[in-house]
Amino acid sequence: MRELEELILKKGKVLEGNILKVDSFLNQQVDCAMMKLIGNEFANYFKDKNITKVLTVESSGIAPAMFTAMDLDCDLVFARKKKSLTIEDNIYKSTVYSYTKQEMKEIMVSKDFIKENDNILLIDDFLANGQAAKAMIALCKQAGANVCGIGIVIEKSFQKGRKLLDEMDMDVYSLARIKSLSTEGIEFED
Amino acid sequence: MRELEELILKKGKVLEGNILKVDSFLNQQVDCAMMKLIGNEFANYFKDKNITKVLTVESSGIAPAMFTAMDLDCDLVFARKKKSLTIEDNIYKSTVYSYTKQEMKEIMVSKDFIKENDNILLIDDFLANGQAAKAMIALCKQAGANVCGIGIVIEKSFQKGRKLLDEMDMDVYSLARIKSLSTEGIEFED
Repeated sequence: MRELEELILKKGKVLEGNILKVDSFLNQQVDCAMMKLIGNEFANYFKDKNITKVLTVESSGIAPAMFTAMDLDCDLVFARKKKSLTIEDNIYKSTVYSYTKQEMKEIMVSKDFIKENDNILLIDDFLANGQAAKAMIALCKQAGANVCGIGIVIEKSFQKGRKLLDEMDMDVYSLARIKSLSTEGIEFED
Repeated sequence: MRELEELILKKGKVLEGNILKVDSFLNQQVDCAMMKLIGNEFANYFKDKNITKVLTVESSGIAPAMFTAMDLDCDLVFARKKKSLTIEDNIYKSTVYSYTKQEMKEIMVSKDFIKENDNILLIDDFLANGQAAKAMIALCKQAGANVCGIGIVIEKSFQKGRKLLDEMDMDVYSLARIKSLSTEGIEFED
């Protein structure tokens, strides 16, 4: 998506360790108009898949997933990263390793919100090593739900996540695919 | 807001300890159409305040705050609850005690996203003891920004948060104000 690539080039910052910081429009400050555009794009791409739920992980996935769900006329569900007292034991859970935060986390979702007959679209802000996507797929599998596709805002194509999801035969649609990333510059896939 | 009160009565569950569980449309599964309505309502109420940023805390505040910011044509900023490696030391921080999760947490926001001249609208999903709102106000004070109002989706009026914010002379607009809450039923303020 050209508008997104331009925004990444304009506002993204590259930190040590292949980290792309997009806090100024996606991960902390959120550009609403861009999120709406992103939601439109995902919804349009997956519109024939009869999606019944959009699933993401808190927090940065919520804004783009919200507009996607809105356009697909279905509910958004966000998996939580830690157990709170308002969630009962009635949950599916899975483990994800975050390279950015350098820690293991459990993600979980209530059994009430993903059902056997659901057609799920997964949305996430980043695809790097594919750990979050893999954990969301595991949650859906536990529920017996059907994962119909994965929408990614920014894919770091040089890391192993894309290959992992391709090998799982997933329909992955990434809006910006980064071929290489360094403090010298950012290069996108064609 | 009548539509919201009806949804709370229909889908909310009351747990031990005055906890209202609204995971089915707000805190984990998200009803997009209701979030849009909520955003419209907040934006309309605060439209003359020249809001330059909408501030919330991850994660449940993001969906309603997103639509509010969209309508007010400004960016959304969400404070984070824990430090991640992609956020540098360039932050404002404040402490919040969560009664639901029974723990102290730091919330933080990058100094890049709240500035001295900003007119901030705070949005949160719940107002109970007012701890999250108080911490967000503290962040804004550190930045020298102006807190122009607070939009709350569900207020538990029988807890001390509303009084606390009134005493701070805040313009608080709550869409559903709960007078009493028990497993017997939910009663709203007139």
